[in-house]
Amino acid sequence: MPKVEHRKATALSDDELRTLDAHWRAANYLAAGQIYLMANPLLTEPLEPEHIKPRLLGHWGTSPGLNLVYTHLNRVIKARALDALCVWGPGHGGPSVLAGSWLDGSYSEIHPDVSRDAPGMERLFRQFSFPGGVPSHVAPEVPGSIHEGGELGYSLAHAYGAAFDNPDLVVACVIGDGEAETGPLAASWHSNKFLDPVHDGAVLPILHLNGYKIANPAVLSRLPEAELDALLRGYGHEPLHVTGDDPAGVHRAMARALDDALDQIALLQRTAREEGIGERAHWPMIVLRTPKGWTGPAEVDGLPVEGTWRSHQVPLAGVRENPEHLRQLEAWLRSYRPEELFHPDGRPVADVLACVPEGGRRLGATPHANGGLLTHDLPIRSLDSFAVPVKKPGTTLHEPTRILGDLLQQVMKDTAARRDFRLVGPDETASNRLQAVFDASGKAWQAGTLQTDEHLDRHGRVMEILSEHLCQGWLEGYLLTGRHGLFSCYEAFVHIVDSMVNQHIKWLRTSRRLPWRAPIPSLNYLLTSHVWRQDHNGFSHQDPGFVDHVLNKSPEVVRVYLPPDANTLLSVADHALRSRDYVNVIVAGKQPCFDWLPMDAARAHCARGAGIWEWAGTENGGEPDVVLACAGDVPTQEVLAAAQLLRRHLPGLAVRVVNVVDMTRLMPREEHPHGMSDFEYDGLFTRDKPVIFAYHGYPWLIHRLAYRRTGHPNLHVRGYKESGTTTTPFDMVVRNDLDRYRLVMDVIDRVPGLAVRAAAERQRMADARTRHHAWIREHGTDLPEVADWTWNA
Amino acid sequence: MPKVEHRKATALSDDELRTLDAHWRAANYLAAGQIYLMANPLLTEPLEPEHIKPRLLGHWGTSPGLNLVYTHLNRVIKARALDALCVWGPGHGGPSVLAGSWLDGSYSEIHPDVSRDAPGMERLFRQFSFPGGVPSHVAPEVPGSIHEGGELGYSLAHAYGAAFDNPDLVVACVIGDGEAETGPLAASWHSNKFLDPVHDGAVLPILHLNGYKIANPAVLSRLPEAELDALLRGYGHEPLHVTGDDPAGVHRAMARALDDALDQIALLQRTAREEGIGERAHWPMIVLRTPKGWTGPAEVDGLPVEGTWRSHQVPLAGVRENPEHLRQLEAWLRSYRPEELFHPDGRPVADVLACVPEGGRRLGATPHANGGLLTHDLPIRSLDSFAVPVKKPGTTLHEPTRILGDLLQQVMKDTAARRDFRLVGPDETASNRLQAVFDASGKAWQAGTLQTDEHLDRHGRVMEILSEHLCQGWLEGYLLTGRHGLFSCYEAFVHIVDSMVNQHIKWLRTSRRLPWRAPIPSLNYLLTSHVWRQDHNGFSHQDPGFVDHVLNKSPEVVRVYLPPDANTLLSVADHALRSRDYVNVIVAGKQPCFDWLPMDAARAHCARGAGIWEWAGTENGGEPDVVLACAGDVPTQEVLAAAQLLRRHLPGLAVRVVNVVDMTRLMPREEHPHGMSDFEYDGLFTRDKPVIFAYHGYPWLIHRLAYRRTGHPNLHVRGYKESGTTTTPFDMVVRNDLDRYRLVMDVIDRVPGLAVRAAAERQRMADARTRHHAWIREHGTDLPEVADWTWNA
Repeated sequence: MPKVEHRKATALSDDELRTLDAHWRAANYLAAGQIYLMANPLLTEPLEPEHIKPRLLGHWGTSPGLNLVYTHLNRVIKARALDALCVWGPGHGGPSVLAGSWLDGSYSEIHPDVSRDAPGMERLFRQFSFPGGVPSHVAPEVPGSIHEGGELGYSLAHAYGAAFDNPDLVVACVIGDGEAETGPLAASWHSNKFLDPVHDGAVLPILHLNGYKIANPAVLSRLPEAELDALLRGYGHEPLHVTGDDPAGVHRAMARALDDALDQIALLQRTAREEGIGERAHWPMIVLRTPKGWTGPAEVDGLPVEGTWRSHQVPLAGVRENPEHLRQLEAWLRSYRPEELFHPDGRPVADVLACVPEGGRRLGATPHANGGLLTHDLPIRSLDSFAVPVKKPGTTLHEPTRILGDLLQQVMKDTAARRDFRLVGPDETASNRLQAVFDASGKAWQAGTLQTDEHLDRHGRVMEILSEHLCQGWLEGYLLTGRHGLFSCYEAFVHIVDSMVNQHIKWLRTSRRLPWRAPIPSLNYLLTSHVWRQDHNGFSHQDPGFVDHVLNKSPEVVRVYLPPDANTLLSVADHALRSRDYVNVIVAGKQPCFDWLPMDAARAHCARGAGIWEWAGTENGGEPDVVLACAGDVPTQEVLAAAQLLRRHLPGLAVRVVNVVDMTRLMPREEHPHGMSDFEYDGLFTRDKPVIFAYHGYPWLIHRLAYRRTGHPNLHVRGYKESGTTTTPFDMVVRNDLDRYRLVMDVIDRVPGLAVRAAAERQRMADARTRHHAWIREHGTDLPEVADWTWNA
Repeated sequence: MPKVEHRKATALSDDELRTLDAHWRAANYLAAGQIYLMANPLLTEPLEPEHIKPRLLGHWGTSPGLNLVYTHLNRVIKARALDALCVWGPGHGGPSVLAGSWLDGSYSEIHPDVSRDAPGMERLFRQFSFPGGVPSHVAPEVPGSIHEGGELGYSLAHAYGAAFDNPDLVVACVIGDGEAETGPLAASWHSNKFLDPVHDGAVLPILHLNGYKIANPAVLSRLPEAELDALLRGYGHEPLHVTGDDPAGVHRAMARALDDALDQIALLQRTAREEGIGERAHWPMIVLRTPKGWTGPAEVDGLPVEGTWRSHQVPLAGVRENPEHLRQLEAWLRSYRPEELFHPDGRPVADVLACVPEGGRRLGATPHANGGLLTHDLPIRSLDSFAVPVKKPGTTLHEPTRILGDLLQQVMKDTAARRDFRLVGPDETASNRLQAVFDASGKAWQAGTLQTDEHLDRHGRVMEILSEHLCQGWLEGYLLTGRHGLFSCYEAFVHIVDSMVNQHIKWLRTSRRLPWRAPIPSLNYLLTSHVWRQDHNGFSHQDPGFVDHVLNKSPEVVRVYLPPDANTLLSVADHALRSRDYVNVIVAGKQPCFDWLPMDAARAHCARGAGIWEWAGTENGGEPDVVLACAGDVPTQEVLAAAQLLRRHLPGLAVRVVNVVDMTRLMPREEHPHGMSDFEYDGLFTRDKPVIFAYHGYPWLIHRLAYRRTGHPNLHVRGYKESGTTTTPFDMVVRNDLDRYRLVMDVIDRVPGLAVRAAAERQRMADARTRHHAWIREHGTDLPEVADWTWNA
């Protein structure tokens, strides 16, 4: 591995030290001010209880460390003309990042009323954690951020996502020692085995050990130094240690470490880009060990605070009531010597701003943190080039995800130069039948290789790692910085990222309402290997509830599609890949599935989101006797088979077949932008006829979406009810009462008067189910009449 | 740290080698047989297509390695009279664990028809992955298992959970190199900082590197050995490396490594138990590097299979149709020389069984893997000793979780000797106001300590780590081995373990139906720091959807409680802690909350699960004009405040107040064992009166539960609708239209005729909301009339 050539200027001059410290003190002052003050921001008069906010909210403990990083990143960005972005893992330290962006001017550019002067400072303080103000954590409202500081664990994955295909970008990532205990973060360290030093930028992890979480020591901070060092080297990094509580010493050490790290990064990149990738790079990282709540009150009420968990939130809690606390707060705030840092009118003095870079290089103003500014539309060719021909519905079979693979392959090819599209998945791209993409891009891989490996590629844009968390985190970081992607996942195991998608949806919901945030490409899920086809796996792999989960979230963001065949999958995926600021959940099978609609019809059907399949039903202009509705590929097949049985055995019955692709169409118009009017809904489902609805997932979801409709009392839903094991495809639908025979029985039971008239037909259906049970126990396969069924009407 | 004294007998005798290899070959034969054969199990005749299953399902790749571990664990268990349990991380290798338990006889004891002879072997083969048979993964049906082999990531956390408070138990844990990439597994390595060498047993991780996942190399298997070694030492382990593809050499190395590891474990434990805990123990672990699909076909159709990802599932896929594949399969199976391993009647020969231990020491028969056999009822004192006195409802305040903390403290004290109760949480025990427990037990901690630490304890039974995954995984392992516990978690972030709770519920659903599995203590969640009180945090911390998530799952397992005050929380928690085989979700606040019910009334109310609060309503025997229903502490307060407003401003209106504690009571009787009959439901909610339901979570959940009720069209639900930020408590309810003023407006809007009559009152309510908005923007606190409100009627 190439050895770093140290630049000459690694020692700070006294001037630099003074100005860096001034910036840091100013940031510390502003962070504390946000937690406490609603008036008297410059302490021009003695501090009084009425200057103090009535509710003291915020997190001080992590703030001085974050401020230190902000200060020193400013220095190197300016000195080296870096393109840099910082992901703030301990984002509950919102006051810091707000302080940094107020100091670099980016905050006031977005919020002119929070100007970089005394009135603006007062607003900055007052609005923090104040009703109608700004949240206490780093959030979309904070310029320069792509990372919500709420749920911990995803900072490093986000940082890598931002760095992929951004060769000139350095992404610093502050990781708190609390966050470092989470699973997703622990797994994220190995992301460096997927970082291409040629086409990707660099990630610089800064592990901030301040010793404590909310109430406990942090594990990594309490390892012997040699053990921690072994761990970080085992993760593939070269750690640089910065330790101390003396500001000047820490400033010097931090400056040196950052210079060393950036020199090393530059060298690794230059070598790889000029000479090709040899050995895997061991990227530098920084271990920053400073006290929690550094420079805050050392003791409060006789108990140690600085350097302990007691500084996690608000170190002095009783300031309004307790004169001693008020005195301590004033002494603390004045310890930063605000009169040296700000002009009387509140503008920061030149020393404070000496380290701050210009324009779009400022951490608060980098366009990478407002990625929509950098987004280009994805080149997607006409779907006709990928569509499967459908002469007669239900007679030919295709694996829908394999057809989608052709489209993704072409997108991958057409972005080969732009490099702004990635496909992620937990080791399942081929298992999910998307392997055509490998003709356009291999799989990103920088670790060791063997002769027997296939499709590994130093420069690949297909990302596979057996961690749904990393897939999600990487993709989020990639999207938030303005690029495109798709996450293909086993349906059941996407619940692993339930909490992550929550946070991403909340991010999008908020950022959509911020005019300065440009829309970013949507987060697209392809959920496949779904509940109905887990022949190899069984009960543990059967869970269709992700749809329920996302539909709890903001309707302006979430979209759910269940295309019933290959061409509808193409249409839906095309729409999703072109869209912005959504979370699109697409559920589609990878097993051979009947082709129902030619491409044009598929396009039209998907545009409507739900519609009558006239060719499948038997109504003749008038209202039908019964509606058979379906959503999802397997339910569609069973409904069509049931429709065929009804056609044959009960020829007089007027049956309507309705297929739903876009689940949110079922919702009331007032509840979701895609929701149907009652007029439309009644036109499809009738107001008073029985509706037998075969749904891919948990049946009560349909009731939840449709309960306000006039015809709801006549709605009868079949779906997955947690009955599964390792078994045949048809046995799965029988176990859950979603099979064609059961659906026909449901029709007979629910159409008025039919139960008596069609008793023999009903018995015939029950007999078929009995025959099924006997057959699979003996043969282990499905009944030939089911296995060989095709649409024939 | 004490140095290991090597036992003398670390070299295998030739005899031992021969018998170990015989056991391993037998297990390999049985594993392959399960994947392929439905007849001719002993290959007494040439293999024909009709002996082959019609659907070839299963995972061969990991099986030989798992078999090797099973064989060698047998040896050391027998030689050392160990109490041991094995957690099989790569549980998709179901054929292996089934083979091992069939060989040790435990399988046939539970399933006498699958006897340890030729007919039983045929059944063992046929039933595997066959409809009506057994799942392809390790699952509850497999004796000796506490770990479903479906979703990967939790093996090591489960192993630690099993080891806690089991001082004489050694828990081996096989970790696949695929699983090792997941976040939860990556975090689990640090569990050793929480393992007490005195009161806990030992965990022996066996990292099995076979190089490939489904389709990709595994990251850890492709690290340079020194880097991997550094990583594992950084995790705090002493790695022992076993590498090879020559069976005899691997047998010798594995035997030596296991002996070394167990010697080291014994020494560490003896030292700690005799001399006290000094330096943190660096526990041994084994790195086992053998080929994927070892001993299977080397090549198929000209492509390498053994040692590559192609052996992951079924190495020869076309056996029934392709004579060459059939020939290869026969050669493969015969390579194990079954005629040497089994008597002609199918019984294993003595050599095969030589290593197998006896009785309850067998891996398939250890009672620790059927933990309910070992469970003792938890000692819980009368709730009267913890109850808060309630003279008049709604006039005194308590923090409900703090009161529960008193109960937990007492349970902790009363189990001090038994050590069969643990409290887990992600660094939030004190934040969630349960700190009273620290008077009975400190927090488990074996890493470094400082003067400023509090409540850390080498022998503590409160477990805190900033990883919901580890909290959940540890607790699951602890419960599955028969002990008790409670997981307290921020409500929003419990979604982090959505997928884990899925798997646990599926496990319980299945094991409840197995007569030989004894019921185990329930998995109890206390979800607090809930959506309505996130003053410090805001939108990212607001998600009440876990209830929705678990209610998708098997009704025989899931229970959801929303106690409205301290005494009802005590009652619900008491019930949950005594129960078996459930997942109990309890949502309760930590902020001061009005006391509504004295203890006796609380007990009676919780036993009913839902009931009318007569004292709060204004009905006079007849049917009310309107029902105000509530579930959850904050909605209850708002409903009571609304009832008081109605009483004052619309005195003629007959209002009924209904409180729901047990959410599943709302479901139809046929859908959940707790479901109410329609008669009961109508008695509470009426059949035709407007019901305004203030619910803690997403409002549509109530519709989903109640849509079949007669009165459903009159049900109007208010709840959380993703509108939140860092703000005051009352502003949160106003933002989501759950506030008292809005509820009164809802009543006025929905009671027939009232809109006109009560227009002035309605305006008064609207004015109060306007006043609220103005007030908080100015003062940052809630309106005094809200902040100082008490029940006064």
